[in-house]
Amino acid sequence: MRTTQMLMPTLREVPAEAEVVSHQLLLRAGFIRKLASGVYTYLPLAMRVLQKIERIVREEMNRQGGQELLMPIIQPAEIWLESGRWHVYGPELFRLKDRHDRDFCLGPTHEEVITLLVRGEVRSYKQMPLLLYHITNKYRDERRPRFGLMRGREFIMKDLYSFDRNEEELDVSYQKMHEAYTNVFTRCGLKFRPVEADSGAIGGSSTHEFMVLADSGEAAILYCSHCDYAANIEKASLPAAGLDAAVPPLELEQVSTPGQKSAAEVAQFFGLETSQVIKTMIYRTDKELVAALVRGDRDVNEIKLLNVLGALTVELASETEVQQATGAPTGYAGPVGLKKIRMVADHEVMALVNAVAGANQGDAHYKNVNPDRDFKPDLVADIRMVQAGESCANCGGTLEEARGIEVGQIFKLGTKYSKTLGATYLDENGKEQPIVMGCYGIGVSRTMAAAIEQNHDADGIIWPASIAPYHAVVIPVSAKDQGQMELAGDLYDQLNRLGVETILDDRAERPGVKFKDADLIGYPLRIVVGAKALSEGVVEVRQRRSGQVDLLPVDQLAEKVKEILTSL
Amino acid sequence: MRTTQMLMPTLREVPAEAEVVSHQLLLRAGFIRKLASGVYTYLPLAMRVLQKIERIVREEMNRQGGQELLMPIIQPAEIWLESGRWHVYGPELFRLKDRHDRDFCLGPTHEEVITLLVRGEVRSYKQMPLLLYHITNKYRDERRPRFGLMRGREFIMKDLYSFDRNEEELDVSYQKMHEAYTNVFTRCGLKFRPVEADSGAIGGSSTHEFMVLADSGEAAILYCSHCDYAANIEKASLPAAGLDAAVPPLELEQVSTPGQKSAAEVAQFFGLETSQVIKTMIYRTDKELVAALVRGDRDVNEIKLLNVLGALTVELASETEVQQATGAPTGYAGPVGLKKIRMVADHEVMALVNAVAGANQGDAHYKNVNPDRDFKPDLVADIRMVQAGESCANCGGTLEEARGIEVGQIFKLGTKYSKTLGATYLDENGKEQPIVMGCYGIGVSRTMAAAIEQNHDADGIIWPASIAPYHAVVIPVSAKDQGQMELAGDLYDQLNRLGVETILDDRAERPGVKFKDADLIGYPLRIVVGAKALSEGVVEVRQRRSGQVDLLPVDQLAEKVKEILTSL
Repeated sequence: MRTTQMLMPTLREVPAEAEVVSHQLLLRAGFIRKLASGVYTYLPLAMRVLQKIERIVREEMNRQGGQELLMPIIQPAEIWLESGRWHVYGPELFRLKDRHDRDFCLGPTHEEVITLLVRGEVRSYKQMPLLLYHITNKYRDERRPRFGLMRGREFIMKDLYSFDRNEEELDVSYQKMHEAYTNVFTRCGLKFRPVEADSGAIGGSSTHEFMVLADSGEAAILYCSHCDYAANIEKASLPAAGLDAAVPPLELEQVSTPGQKSAAEVAQFFGLETSQVIKTMIYRTDKELVAALVRGDRDVNEIKLLNVLGALTVELASETEVQQATGAPTGYAGPVGLKKIRMVADHEVMALVNAVAGANQGDAHYKNVNPDRDFKPDLVADIRMVQAGESCANCGGTLEEARGIEVGQIFKLGTKYSKTLGATYLDENGKEQPIVMGCYGIGVSRTMAAAIEQNHDADGIIWPASIAPYHAVVIPVSAKDQGQMELAGDLYDQLNRLGVETILDDRAERPGVKFKDADLIGYPLRIVVGAKALSEGVVEVRQRRSGQVDLLPVDQLAEKVKEILTSL
Repeated sequence: MRTTQMLMPTLREVPAEAEVVSHQLLLRAGFIRKLASGVYTYLPLAMRVLQKIERIVREEMNRQGGQELLMPIIQPAEIWLESGRWHVYGPELFRLKDRHDRDFCLGPTHEEVITLLVRGEVRSYKQMPLLLYHITNKYRDERRPRFGLMRGREFIMKDLYSFDRNEEELDVSYQKMHEAYTNVFTRCGLKFRPVEADSGAIGGSSTHEFMVLADSGEAAILYCSHCDYAANIEKASLPAAGLDAAVPPLELEQVSTPGQKSAAEVAQFFGLETSQVIKTMIYRTDKELVAALVRGDRDVNEIKLLNVLGALTVELASETEVQQATGAPTGYAGPVGLKKIRMVADHEVMALVNAVAGANQGDAHYKNVNPDRDFKPDLVADIRMVQAGESCANCGGTLEEARGIEVGQIFKLGTKYSKTLGATYLDENGKEQPIVMGCYGIGVSRTMAAAIEQNHDADGIIWPASIAPYHAVVIPVSAKDQGQMELAGDLYDQLNRLGVETILDDRAERPGVKFKDADLIGYPLRIVVGAKALSEGVVEVRQRRSGQVDLLPVDQLAEKVKEILTSL
């Protein structure tokens, strides 16, 4: 393709509405244009990137036995009523009526459609496993769409659904998808981590998020510097140390602690480590008030707490509620003598000896608090945040924190949808069983944006070669120089014939403008045909990422460029 | 792919809801399933066909310099208000509101989006011509969706829009698309005709519909048996013969014709040809009553009439209205003395000498009616239907009638949208000009259905090889015979390696069931591996369309099959 024939409108200015770098660069480099809030047109350069990502996704899904189909975007309300999600889904669901006043929605996901399809077609255990997927637009009416393709209202997703006879075979399908996703993001040239994530209220027993690592990522993850372990910070968990039996418990004692509230203050007051303090946080769930106990040097992981309690919502209680529940102002809550509300203690708290805790009176704490002797929690569980610097449970390595952008998620659904929607099969003994399902999503348009968040510099995008819109751009320095233009055209043809996807910048612009655009758009290789190309037979090949420049002979250029490309 | 691993659920029964053969066969052969009225899931076999059609479309669009992009499905109301179509479009437009109560629709077409995109990005004549297209779902809330994929509410379309500096360059773009469309449907293996069609009230000067010929087609077309001429029956037009100056006009005379109403009756009564009668039809438009005159052996073409009158609607007047306008009951209207309403005469009528016409009195006609002498129409124009059997205006060949399914349309829009939406450019002299546009659509999912309407028999679908889901199926006769299964598996591998897309029917079913499914699904080639394959080294290759059977040696099978496939 020649630049003069292509719609690739670059912008010099950073658009004011774009907060994140991928949004800025997609607009500036002529990849997208906004039609409405969270709704974008993908211009030709973006289409090429999307099609490359989709191709990689297809190949990896097919390699695992995935079958591509295509489900509708408009879905009738009945099926969402049948699954129970029509009323649950809330304002994120785009709803509409047809001319006969029947309710429809724009699919944010396709569990209902696919489960009903399989309910109609699968009868026997012989028809499984079944891995069905499609790539299509998805819709979520975000309250505040922003960040360009990172949080749009219309976006492109691949979703695959697995159908198996039992949990063991679901494990196999899940593992296949884990492998497929690893291959997809590796082939896209991205640095990423599959992280253990919280399966939360959606149910299901296991889930991994695939995170592209980028400083701008919205999620914090912990990963081991030595082994493969990685987890969403909300999910990361470590086994608690046992009780130190060598230390004898001392007698419980109340101490006046005027003004000492935070764990750090209290620890200093008592001359102890913060880890010797029991932090008692009062939360309000959708059902009750609860006390959550963690060590003074830890934070409560509210998602773990929510799951442990089986609650739908959890938030910190108000001053008044704390006073009501503990009889003391905030800062002096403690487990000893706390009777009115349920108490959940983290495993680590139960391993403390002679700890300090609030006395449920203003300006007072207990010292020598010993769990089990001085209080008995209603529940002991893992409810704390793991922190960077702690040791990996797998290998003892050090956990490090990074930020990531979720581009994929794999999820064991189990029988949640098949039971609700009646998708069953007859097993080897002719007995009816619910089908065991998994679902697996990749944000295709989001992956394009995440690739930019991870791969850019001050000058523009730095595309990984496998998903770059073109591998190389050929730039004649002087558009007026007939010889340069012809040679550039020849090289452009040669490169394309060799399979190096090349674009020719044949515009009558100054070379500086073309160089700036080449950097902005982010082609992996820039090939400059200048005066030396004619006089000395050499052209300059510059690698976008490393900045490395090679002067290569014209007569071997295409082969050499192909070699460089392979090495990227 | 192996049949046991694929979701391809065939049905023995003809589904009751399916009226047309493509709908029946798509359901029976396991290509589609209905989710809601006019809304379908495309199963894996259908996906393969659709992807092949899309690939052909892409290649032909790109060959003409088309650039692929992707525009949104949800479109804000503002842009439809700006073009004036929000209120015009009526109940076919799916409308919805977002959570902030803003109006959106699901795009039935993308003139607004693309024109506004181009308005924002194109400033200079140097940026054109520009051919932009995308392939995506389209939405039309049909009052009565039916015929499966032939008239759905959600369907897949390719739409390309051309942007040019002037009418001459639009002609070039239009011609490119004419060629591209011809290539697309030729490569899809379809018998089709590009036909001149009516551009109607939408405006624009020229349009062709691409019609796949099929007896079940909803449109009647006339085509020349000798040359390329073809036209929608509503559009077909022929030059009228001149006045026969050799015949002297006789004196006008009123004749009593009790009970003689139709042209045929009147002609017989007077002993004349029906072509000597002037048929006078009274119509009601949205503005007025009009009289339309054609020869007795012709029919009024209401679409031509509508265009000639510049009316929005046209329908036959009621008995009362006829009485009111002519003073006579229906059957006795005529041009002589008709004063109250406008009169439009077909060219052919003006060439008559000594014709017969109604006298605007019950049971009376005039003979020796001579146009211009006895009446003067307000308008003379081509308002008649051309009929099969008439002579082609291009070459004198005979016109024949056929039925067709519209799968594509190319259309000169001119400056309709660019003027309304302000899409202009600066010409060579720095003067602002409106961009000249064309639009070009292909119904991708409709093409799949049309291919079936044209290519099927009592046993099922007969896919053209280029868009078949697989080229060949390999069927081992006995699934229990280890040798047959292994050989079948080997041949299947060999064929796929040679690029013959092959599916292996490895189900433990009786051969009759597999043969029936193979015919129903419509693979071009069926390869049966039976006892002889092992004992004599030959397998049977049957061509789906011709029924021709070849016994081919196992050791050359793949090459031979590839040859046969190339010949199809």
